[in-house]
Amino acid sequence: MDKIHAAILGASGYTGSELIRLLDRHPRFRLVHLAAHSHAGKQAGDVLPGLHDKLAALQLVHIDDPLPDDCQLVFAALPHGAAARTVARVLETGCRVIDLSADFRHQSPETYRQAYGTDHPYPHLLHTAIYGLTEWSRQRLPEARLVANPGCYPTSMLLPLIPLIRAGVLDEAPIIVDAKSGASGAGRSAKVELLFCELNESCRAYGLPRHRHSWEMEEWLAHFGGQPLRVRFVPHILPMNRGMLTTLHLSGRDASSWRDILQQNYANEPFVRLLPEGNLPSTASVAGSNRCDIGLSPLDNDECVVISCIDNLLKGAAGQAIQNANVMFGLDETCGLPDLPCWP
Amino acid sequence: MDKIHAAILGASGYTGSELIRLLDRHPRFRLVHLAAHSHAGKQAGDVLPGLHDKLAALQLVHIDDPLPDDCQLVFAALPHGAAARTVARVLETGCRVIDLSADFRHQSPETYRQAYGTDHPYPHLLHTAIYGLTEWSRQRLPEARLVANPGCYPTSMLLPLIPLIRAGVLDEAPIIVDAKSGASGAGRSAKVELLFCELNESCRAYGLPRHRHSWEMEEWLAHFGGQPLRVRFVPHILPMNRGMLTTLHLSGRDASSWRDILQQNYANEPFVRLLPEGNLPSTASVAGSNRCDIGLSPLDNDECVVISCIDNLLKGAAGQAIQNANVMFGLDETCGLPDLPCWP
Amino acid sequence: MDKIHAAILGASGYTGSELIRLLDRHPRFRLVHLAAHSHAGKQAGDVLPGLHDKLAALQLVHIDDPLPDDCQLVFAALPHGAAARTVARVLETGCRVIDLSADFRHQSPETYRQAYGTDHPYPHLLHTAIYGLTEWSRQRLPEARLVANPGCYPTSMLLPLIPLIRAGVLDEAPIIVDAKSGASGAGRSAKVELLFCELNESCRAYGLPRHRHSWEMEEWLAHFGGQPLRVRFVPHILPMNRGMLTTLHLSGRDASSWRDILQQNYANEPFVRLLPEGNLPSTASVAGSNRCDIGLSPLDNDECVVISCIDNLLKGAAGQAIQNANVMFGLDETCGLPDLPCWP
Amino acid sequence: MDKIHAAILGASGYTGSELIRLLDRHPRFRLVHLAAHSHAGKQAGDVLPGLHDKLAALQLVHIDDPLPDDCQLVFAALPHGAAARTVARVLETGCRVIDLSADFRHQSPETYRQAYGTDHPYPHLLHTAIYGLTEWSRQRLPEARLVANPGCYPTSMLLPLIPLIRAGVLDEAPIIVDAKSGASGAGRSAKVELLFCELNESCRAYGLPRHRHSWEMEEWLAHFGGQPLRVRFVPHILPMNRGMLTTLHLSGRDASSWRDILQQNYANEPFVRLLPEGNLPSTASVAGSNRCDIGLSPLDNDECVVISCIDNLLKGAAGQAIQNANVMFGLDETCGLPDLPCWP
Repeated sequence: MDKIHAAILGASGYTGSELIRLLDRHPRFRLVHLAAHSHAGKQAGDVLPGLHDKLAALQLVHIDDPLPDDCQLVFAALPHGAAARTVARVLETGCRVIDLSADFRHQSPETYRQAYGTDHPYPHLLHTAIYGLTEWSRQRLPEARLVANPGCYPTSMLLPLIPLIRAGVLDEAPIIVDAKSGASGAGRSAKVELLFCELNESCRAYGLPRHRHSWEMEEWLAHFGGQPLRVRFVPHILPMNRGMLTTLHLSGRDASSWRDILQQNYANEPFVRLLPEGNLPSTASVAGSNRCDIGLSPLDNDECVVISCIDNLLKGAAGQAIQNANVMFGLDETCGLPDLPCWP
Repeated sequence: MDKIHAAILGASGYTGSELIRLLDRHPRFRLVHLAAHSHAGKQAGDVLPGLHDKLAALQLVHIDDPLPDDCQLVFAALPHGAAARTVARVLETGCRVIDLSADFRHQSPETYRQAYGTDHPYPHLLHTAIYGLTEWSRQRLPEARLVANPGCYPTSMLLPLIPLIRAGVLDEAPIIVDAKSGASGAGRSAKVELLFCELNESCRAYGLPRHRHSWEMEEWLAHFGGQPLRVRFVPHILPMNRGMLTTLHLSGRDASSWRDILQQNYANEPFVRLLPEGNLPSTASVAGSNRCDIGLSPLDNDECVVISCIDNLLKGAAGQAIQNANVMFGLDETCGLPDLPCWP
Repeated sequence: MDKIHAAILGASGYTGSELIRLLDRHPRFRLVHLAAHSHAGKQAGDVLPGLHDKLAALQLVHIDDPLPDDCQLVFAALPHGAAARTVARVLETGCRVIDLSADFRHQSPETYRQAYGTDHPYPHLLHTAIYGLTEWSRQRLPEARLVANPGCYPTSMLLPLIPLIRAGVLDEAPIIVDAKSGASGAGRSAKVELLFCELNESCRAYGLPRHRHSWEMEEWLAHFGGQPLRVRFVPHILPMNRGMLTTLHLSGRDASSWRDILQQNYANEPFVRLLPEGNLPSTASVAGSNRCDIGLSPLDNDECVVISCIDNLLKGAAGQAIQNANVMFGLDETCGLPDLPCWP
Repeated sequence: MDKIHAAILGASGYTGSELIRLLDRHPRFRLVHLAAHSHAGKQAGDVLPGLHDKLAALQLVHIDDPLPDDCQLVFAALPHGAAARTVARVLETGCRVIDLSADFRHQSPETYRQAYGTDHPYPHLLHTAIYGLTEWSRQRLPEARLVANPGCYPTSMLLPLIPLIRAGVLDEAPIIVDAKSGASGAGRSAKVELLFCELNESCRAYGLPRHRHSWEMEEWLAHFGGQPLRVRFVPHILPMNRGMLTTLHLSGRDASSWRDILQQNYANEPFVRLLPEGNLPSTASVAGSNRCDIGLSPLDNDECVVISCIDNLLKGAAGQAIQNANVMFGLDETCGLPDLPCWP
């Protein structure tokens, strides 16, 4: 069976590296093109550690260089703002794109402007993009030309919240999202604030008063849940490489039924696992896996703490991108994706 | 000037170790007695690393062994439940006690029973204890015979909340306390769940649906704030040794004025620091210091995120105990206490 | 094609967990039996985090319980000393065994007694075991009934040293092995010295003056290299979960030729990678992979520093066990084994 | 008693920060001047976390700005190569200098050129500098105008080695120095290789084949020990903030007597501690302390492993600088220096 040829634009960061790792072992995709921006011209092995010799010898071309003719899918792992232009150019070649940046995650130019403080350069493309939260976008992916891969924070809160909103058990209070992320979510830029000695043995919040993922959360909560709700989102960065734990402090009714609601929605999902009653998830249980683990602890009838854990580089980025790609090309959705974590 | 003779009962844990470190450099206290339970009979240096030769050579006596006659102050760093009996016995000798366990943190036997699920063995002693949140208990400490040293989680949330409640700017909604703690807060017990490989590269919540510190929080919030409020408390454990970050998701009115309220209350406090507008605290900025750093980010007029950071072993345990001891004996409150963190 | 039925005895530790992860995704083995000692009777999901529902629901039977009739291969991940009895019993059933303990790593009872301070309970079995350093034992594995899986430290030093000894370029000086290991190598026992707060932010040596792996190193260096050499081995434990870096301080002749010697030996090996000149390996580059990365830095003609990195749970334990199993059963040696690391 | 006025040039790095912390609590020095290079003009609190309000409000002037007239001592914590010019200028003002860079650690311009690959810009100053390994330089410090503060790696190996060389128990073989350092030793530069995700969960060697500290080690080993010996030095970087463990693989004679030799040399030293027989040091036991802990494990009569631990920012940099300053100004050598570690 012929493999599907795929390219990675933006191969030198943490998300790019994870895409390489997943595609290298994927039985149905073949990596045919690796591109970077400032590292263009180098060999992959000079920029990323741990590649085997064949991958290490690949040359990183420039992100503006032409794609191979037979390339069918591009994964764009470029910085927010910089991705749009490249994505627009690739789409013109007829190649399908999964964009891991935030550039196509909003349906309206107005929301984009609010979240990112600038006008969208290709507003006409916004409505063509499918927001790729796989479990809820599955039907539309096979025809998608452009998939906007969700942000890690939105993924971690949308998965537990959408079924609850659809079931009508939440009240209208703002959704309090207290999220904790490993450091790889901050990217691979040479900044003092991301140095080992600055993050190690430390925890801090950031992005207040309104992190730009807040708009993404509210837009897709309304879209998939059918009820506009306000989000109060506080992200924190933790001294660990991978993993995201999102604590949702929720109010509503019949909290003891929420576990069943989630179970009914996700019983057959390969990458969403509801923990047994009384168990709470940990990031270590999903690090290295494409899974989202969810635990609930009702406080009383009206209040419930819901906690979800993902690996920010997998279900929060590269893993969900591959999951989307599998659906786009009619493959088994779990194909090439790790289910068990790399523990400890 | 004669030094005040002090003892530590429960010297082999992390809090005991921190008390030793602080008392060894304290200009006005002299450590004359170190006691332990299972490690009784060993030398301190066999149980704790990093002691200098003189401390290392001290023998750990049993916690039931008699105190030296001239001992004026006992720091009890014993497990919850086990402390009460020892504290009661020491009080009979006329020695003053700072109890770092939870055994005397409640004013009524009923609340104790709710929080700890068992009857208090010495209910008549409960009302004699002074809850030692130094900044708010200062007046009553000089005559105290028994000080109940606050828990780390309650300390981290009471300091920012008390002034806000007293100012009447919070509404009646439950207080959402999303707290993150370093692993030393879990103690030095040989449990699989506390092994390096279980906690490293991981984050998880625990203690749900109602951690016992919730009762302590509600009791003293009402006591010092004058308004009964419910607390929804979710603690998390992080892969770092020291440090606690507590995120308070609050609703009320005039959120833009809250910083001034806190500033007015704490402007002259040596160990409470309000961060400049736009700045958020990190645990690394207080680790090794007795300070509590507080930052605020109003979301709009009615909502505000308030974040406090302490070192759970210092302001959250041994440091506040020394601060209380300084006040009890009429010393400068900052005596022997580190102000700057050990950073990085 | 029928799958080969396999069992894990000792499933609740870190090595057992890694075997589960590898076998669960292995295309040719089926995990049919999970046994434990103190955790017998529990479900796998109560003991190990991150399992998917099907694995989590498996019951851990007792290690003395009978194996399924169709079980063809047992992975024994039991403590040193305790493994021998179980292995002997399993061999009598006709089932093949890969023993990950040290119990069958020595060819003579005398060496075993020196290393472990006690008489071997089944001395007649010692000579029947094949020492499974796959790259050098490959020919003998297809007929092996009992494979002694090498220790992590010996694996990390034997791979770079054997070719150099065979080439005759080392002099007779003792081999200085300064090794650094992640904490998972110390196992999953509830000991204070392995608690997060004891190992985090710390580095220490242990096992001196003569760690028991020293005998294993000397025996197999002589066996595979053909020259008896003394080893001076100093292991250290580092604050990280996985990974082992072994620094060899070597003396000999023609140090500039050593890279070529290693390259000639390992050019076609799927799991041994020689780094380009001027590059040194890191544990992060192999963590999550079954690979051994080797770098060299000649100091002058007579002296060379050789550094190897493995993941102690993969090439140092469970990964090499699967590699051996693949060869034992005539499968592709790389089958089911990760090549790229889980980075970062 | 009047305080001695002191300045820090290069206040924005990890060493500068540690100097601020130590001087702020020092009873006899007053910090009167903080200077930086790229951060000049900012307030200290904008560049360093955790300062109290008074320190945070201090303005960082430029390193070329004039010193206050009454400044008696300058701590120069500037990058290697850049320090020399500034130090030369300060010396002309009559102010005394402790230079924490490598620029004045060699006695001859030739050695400097070999180690740093460039001509020394002020060769005539080299012989005026006192190498400030306090325990061995104590007599010459009171008159010193310029003190070259030793490197962290040299400090960690010179302290255990000098007494052994002077006792004549080492043979002439090269000294094998396998050193492991926390990440703060690499400085606070915005480099990808120092990011949290690159160093966390990783260990690697660097600086081969000959790290520039090798020349410093050999020069001062010969100077203080009286015997020229070659050093084979391999440094490694570990995933922790502070701490350095140096493993010395040594050959000689009468190894069982070495502990006594070290004990006789250091019995009265406040900051050198010899561990009891059978004990090995850990970095956690000295992190936050100015102490050097030394442990020995004789392998046989001719061979011995000697391990030393320091905090690279204290005894390896800022702490030893303060220790030197105390001696220069006739103060108690331990004044203002922490003895116990900040553990855990």
